[in-house]
Amino acid sequence: MTRSPHQHHLPATGGRMTVTDDGREVADPALEALYADFASNGLIPLWTEIGNLMPASPAPEARPHVWHWSDLYPLAARAGDLVPVGRGGERRAIAVANPGLAGRPYATPTLWAAIQYLGPRETAPEHRHSQGAFRFVVEGEGVWTVVDGDPVAMRRGDLLLTPGWAFHGHQNVTDRPMAWLDGLDIPLNYQLDAGFFEFGSEKLTDLGTPERSRGERLWGHPGLRPLSGLDARVASPLPAYRWEHTDAALAAQLELEKEGHPGVAGPGHAAVRFSNPTTGADALPTLRTEMHRVAAGAATAVRRTVGSSVWQVFSGSGTARLGEETIKVAQGDLIAVPSWVPFGLRAEDELTAFAFSDAPVYEALYLARTHFEETAS
Amino acid sequence: MTRSPHQHHLPATGGRMTVTDDGREVADPALEALYADFASNGLIPLWTEIGNLMPASPAPEARPHVWHWSDLYPLAARAGDLVPVGRGGERRAIAVANPGLAGRPYATPTLWAAIQYLGPRETAPEHRHSQGAFRFVVEGEGVWTVVDGDPVAMRRGDLLLTPGWAFHGHQNVTDRPMAWLDGLDIPLNYQLDAGFFEFGSEKLTDLGTPERSRGERLWGHPGLRPLSGLDARVASPLPAYRWEHTDAALAAQLELEKEGHPGVAGPGHAAVRFSNPTTGADALPTLRTEMHRVAAGAATAVRRTVGSSVWQVFSGSGTARLGEETIKVAQGDLIAVPSWVPFGLRAEDELTAFAFSDAPVYEALYLARTHFEETAS
Amino acid sequence: MTRSPHQHHLPATGGRMTVTDDGREVADPALEALYADFASNGLIPLWTEIGNLMPASPAPEARPHVWHWSDLYPLAARAGDLVPVGRGGERRAIAVANPGLAGRPYATPTLWAAIQYLGPRETAPEHRHSQGAFRFVVEGEGVWTVVDGDPVAMRRGDLLLTPGWAFHGHQNVTDRPMAWLDGLDIPLNYQLDAGFFEFGSEKLTDLGTPERSRGERLWGHPGLRPLSGLDARVASPLPAYRWEHTDAALAAQLELEKEGHPGVAGPGHAAVRFSNPTTGADALPTLRTEMHRVAAGAATAVRRTVGSSVWQVFSGSGTARLGEETIKVAQGDLIAVPSWVPFGLRAEDELTAFAFSDAPVYEALYLARTHFEETAS
Amino acid sequence: MTRSPHQHHLPATGGRMTVTDDGREVADPALEALYADFASNGLIPLWTEIGNLMPASPAPEARPHVWHWSDLYPLAARAGDLVPVGRGGERRAIAVANPGLAGRPYATPTLWAAIQYLGPRETAPEHRHSQGAFRFVVEGEGVWTVVDGDPVAMRRGDLLLTPGWAFHGHQNVTDRPMAWLDGLDIPLNYQLDAGFFEFGSEKLTDLGTPERSRGERLWGHPGLRPLSGLDARVASPLPAYRWEHTDAALAAQLELEKEGHPGVAGPGHAAVRFSNPTTGADALPTLRTEMHRVAAGAATAVRRTVGSSVWQVFSGSGTARLGEETIKVAQGDLIAVPSWVPFGLRAEDELTAFAFSDAPVYEALYLARTHFEETAS
Repeated sequence: MTRSPHQHHLPATGGRMTVTDDGREVADPALEALYADFASNGLIPLWTEIGNLMPASPAPEARPHVWHWSDLYPLAARAGDLVPVGRGGERRAIAVANPGLAGRPYATPTLWAAIQYLGPRETAPEHRHSQGAFRFVVEGEGVWTVVDGDPVAMRRGDLLLTPGWAFHGHQNVTDRPMAWLDGLDIPLNYQLDAGFFEFGSEKLTDLGTPERSRGERLWGHPGLRPLSGLDARVASPLPAYRWEHTDAALAAQLELEKEGHPGVAGPGHAAVRFSNPTTGADALPTLRTEMHRVAAGAATAVRRTVGSSVWQVFSGSGTARLGEETIKVAQGDLIAVPSWVPFGLRAEDELTAFAFSDAPVYEALYLARTHFEETAS
Repeated sequence: MTRSPHQHHLPATGGRMTVTDDGREVADPALEALYADFASNGLIPLWTEIGNLMPASPAPEARPHVWHWSDLYPLAARAGDLVPVGRGGERRAIAVANPGLAGRPYATPTLWAAIQYLGPRETAPEHRHSQGAFRFVVEGEGVWTVVDGDPVAMRRGDLLLTPGWAFHGHQNVTDRPMAWLDGLDIPLNYQLDAGFFEFGSEKLTDLGTPERSRGERLWGHPGLRPLSGLDARVASPLPAYRWEHTDAALAAQLELEKEGHPGVAGPGHAAVRFSNPTTGADALPTLRTEMHRVAAGAATAVRRTVGSSVWQVFSGSGTARLGEETIKVAQGDLIAVPSWVPFGLRAEDELTAFAFSDAPVYEALYLARTHFEETAS
Repeated sequence: MTRSPHQHHLPATGGRMTVTDDGREVADPALEALYADFASNGLIPLWTEIGNLMPASPAPEARPHVWHWSDLYPLAARAGDLVPVGRGGERRAIAVANPGLAGRPYATPTLWAAIQYLGPRETAPEHRHSQGAFRFVVEGEGVWTVVDGDPVAMRRGDLLLTPGWAFHGHQNVTDRPMAWLDGLDIPLNYQLDAGFFEFGSEKLTDLGTPERSRGERLWGHPGLRPLSGLDARVASPLPAYRWEHTDAALAAQLELEKEGHPGVAGPGHAAVRFSNPTTGADALPTLRTEMHRVAAGAATAVRRTVGSSVWQVFSGSGTARLGEETIKVAQGDLIAVPSWVPFGLRAEDELTAFAFSDAPVYEALYLARTHFEETAS
Repeated sequence: MTRSPHQHHLPATGGRMTVTDDGREVADPALEALYADFASNGLIPLWTEIGNLMPASPAPEARPHVWHWSDLYPLAARAGDLVPVGRGGERRAIAVANPGLAGRPYATPTLWAAIQYLGPRETAPEHRHSQGAFRFVVEGEGVWTVVDGDPVAMRRGDLLLTPGWAFHGHQNVTDRPMAWLDGLDIPLNYQLDAGFFEFGSEKLTDLGTPERSRGERLWGHPGLRPLSGLDARVASPLPAYRWEHTDAALAAQLELEKEGHPGVAGPGHAAVRFSNPTTGADALPTLRTEMHRVAAGAATAVRRTVGSSVWQVFSGSGTARLGEETIKVAQGDLIAVPSWVPFGLRAEDELTAFAFSDAPVYEALYLARTHFEETAS
């Protein structure tokens, strides 16, 4: 992929050459001097840069990529043996680094995706930051994340929110390690110079291990808002979206389809978005989170979207159409989809996948565009 | 209560009198002629009307009033014996008529409240109207309301929505009659000349009797939105708010209070609002619907609100502070609270009450005001 | 016009009759008793009322009507001679009373329209109310309205705002009387029991007579917001919409049309809406205000709208299509258009008209509907 | 400025060392192997990066910087002699390159600022892009920018908009060159991979040179919206904000201050924001544009804001507080203010300055924060 739709159209001067009367291009000393003076005055002309800066359509440096859980988990486990978790390093989280992004720990230009690993009886201390975060659990249980003092159990299939500027720490109360997916908007905040960070309590502020967090007890009832919580919130006040609900919602869509009723996102394709019950908007203001299920043999539409996403296979198996390639994916695998790269999923046996993206950013800035390919994946 | 804060300030001319030099008021023939000419030209002066038209604070013609379920239900049952239900009359619904509203079938100037009664195996035919509606079930079960083709079971404690312009009919599939509360914004639409009405199928368009409606299967999962339903809706797409959820939400608030955590609306007072998951706003655009629970011995705050409401006791018993009076209320009783009339509930044993109001109208028009009394009910 | 689309469909019981086996309708004593018991318990059945309450389309009691300025002004002038203006009566305002609305001083069920008359050197004292208000000047000048302490000059063609709860009074600083149109949402507030009223200073709080009010100096620059005024306001902070701007805007639309460019509301029909620069919404939250200009020989579309409006001819002459009638109108004439009544204007010579309506109310409540007739007026 | 608030807290493992029992740090071969395996699997641990990635407060790579117009203009003029303008290079625009941003043509991480220079009788061909743009004219006149076919005159003090995806080209109809400031969100779109670009007509689609554009004739009337333009627009439909209005608005604020009335942004500090009349929001969805005036001897507050801005002195002279430095600035000078860097202006003689920033981005994403310093600049 190239960033240079303009490249064949550049005037000769872009190359600091000039054209003689008989048509030859020759180096132009006056131009050379001008470019030198631009440089010494902290200036750069548009005409030499426009092809790269303003491509005909998004030409991301980030590359489509798949990381396999079968590689990630053992590395995280080794880190569990060798690297302590505590104040300073804060978290035993290992980020995927997009191969196009020059060694930065970014899944895409806006999204951070990491496997976080907490050993038996370990605690990750409390802190807060303006970056928004969530945890998604692809396997295991036994950790409670304490968000602004409210302990939230983490179990397979659950999505747990840590909105920006909420204090949070984690503890593993079992004798087994646990690993999960962390998603944040760290790269976005970094590029925007928007991040604030503050240390909190080194010990968790609530050591309780309740089945349901207080936030769920207040907010986890469909369509019901407590009268003590009528203001619109920037982020969802519901700390956990439990697998039993997500699974039931996806199953219901496919059942309704079989019964001949609307409800699915596309043929054989059920999907839900995790939302903020105070506004109906995304659960987090800069991160979209969704769960998709594709019936055995079915496929999602293939689409290009402005903005990037990361997908994690939750169960089942199939293939991902990712740009020009089609790649086999299995449980736990992470897929980075850069801007405007065609993407779709095809299921062999029923495939369920978690997805997160920066779509709310583009929608808020009126930069969103989506294009559906004519043929399915 | 009076509408005349201005009355002592009216200029003498308001009485078509004029004041002579020695201070006597005498009838003024020129004024009499002027008023006669006003009348014949279809004109009315402000200065004689302002006290009534523009009171210092709302001075409703509607009166606070209580209707007892023990009176309502037997009358509805007698109507069940004597009055058929069918096309034309449409519904066997009997409205409460506020004693201050001149014989109109209005609970308040904006709200309609009726007991609807459907005998064994009866059907109420389908129709639709721009007026928004809901059903709240204080006792019984066995009726399915079919809303835009989706059969929705009605059971004790459930709130069922019929948004404006949705076709709907009801059928009782049992051998027992069933009665429930109908709430609508009929008076509002009437005053605004906003209503449209259309007959639909005389037979129900879906005779199914599923446990859960299709709308619930799609939308009844906390915080989860189907990707096929991402547009904001004027009214909630969730057709039913089930008692098990409402009850659990209220119970959780009182438990959290006992544990020392926030969540209740006030001391000993749990409350939830039925909301539209696509926006977080009220479930219906012109009608607020809520459920309140007051712990034994506790009381809600007493408040005046611009706009009116109707309350129905769902379970338990206690007293209602209603203007200057305090009235004993029991299950099924309906309470009309006009604008700016002080209102509160006090529980003897734990009291649960359903409430609906026109509050979204006042909020949308920036006319809302609330004033809390200093002492509890 | 009738409110009874259901009337031929009512079950016989609606008439408290029952049908015998041989098909005769006879009075039914049991039914009679039931209806009596309904009445004594404060109940009214739906089935006898539905035709009136829920018509097939809006069937307003308000009637289309025209009041002629040539009648209004002399009556106002006579009131100027006979009725003092001052505290208590507050204003020498004479309201038009819709002939369908039972003697209430309402132009329509939601709108108040009055001619206000202030004699030479007279002052109308300050007060405030939750009702929103504006003044529109069809002729004359020399009065300043002082709105929250800011003196605002009133001149022919100007629209002056008095948002709800703003203190306001008026003074005539000349030796000539002045009359203008007052528009308010008094009937809406009355029906909703939403009104609050408070007396203010009997003398005006600022006796200045500046060319431009302070509000205009801050807000009267196209597209520019003072940094001290970045919060969204419920009502426009611009106190005056001056005729020079309105006239120029209307003229520009018709010129653009002649040049072949878009801009007009319809062929030969220019129109602007007075808006709140902090939101782009209507200048007042419950009242829409607009100015329309129809080129000589042209006509507006004829449309039915849910909700009502009042039009005042500002200059020129022509005819109004008003329901089934076509009526000649001239400068100053007031036209009441009830809900769902067809309305349009046709110009003989170029006709400019001011219009106000309750449309923001219906839009806020999702009750708005408009239907365009196929043929022009 | 440093990005490493965490640096002293990193666990030893961050350095791939381990600590022996007697307290010495030694290289750990197992850790070395783990880090190598991270690298080969495209992974990066958080604990070595967190200090840089998640600073305690924004620690931008961009640096505060001033470019002087006296340097910029002659270089642009030399480019005018040496570099043709035309299809391919598209514009003779020379961007300021922030010295902290590694040679990229960015004023700040989100903002592009360039001097554009158009020689006598030259034309810059039409194109469009999703990047939003404006022109601000610090001197000269004689160019028309044609935006979606509407020719818009450019004169000293004017702000001209080119919303995203609007076709636009420029022509100089005089015998003198003209230069102006171009502002765009090119860096933001680049980082977000959001940009689309399309060539348009090489010749301008309208060669007219009207005093006022058609957009101004429709939209340039304070508080008036054409009925043909009632939908909310993402960007302002007003193509030009004329100096006469901006100047009058700023002057009025300072006059009101002298008269003892509110209106200024701060003592001696008048300011207006260019806004979208359809929403009241910023004129462009990703770029805030404002004009500020500081009375002789007065100063703005000094503040830190999340997000960056560029200021251009329009007239007068004074000093800029920029981080720890205070810098003398004069007409045309451009000042880059990175995120969270203290900034304020102090006027010697009355100083007027144009400012643009990315503030709407941070507000839309709920990332905005501002902190005012206690002492003035």
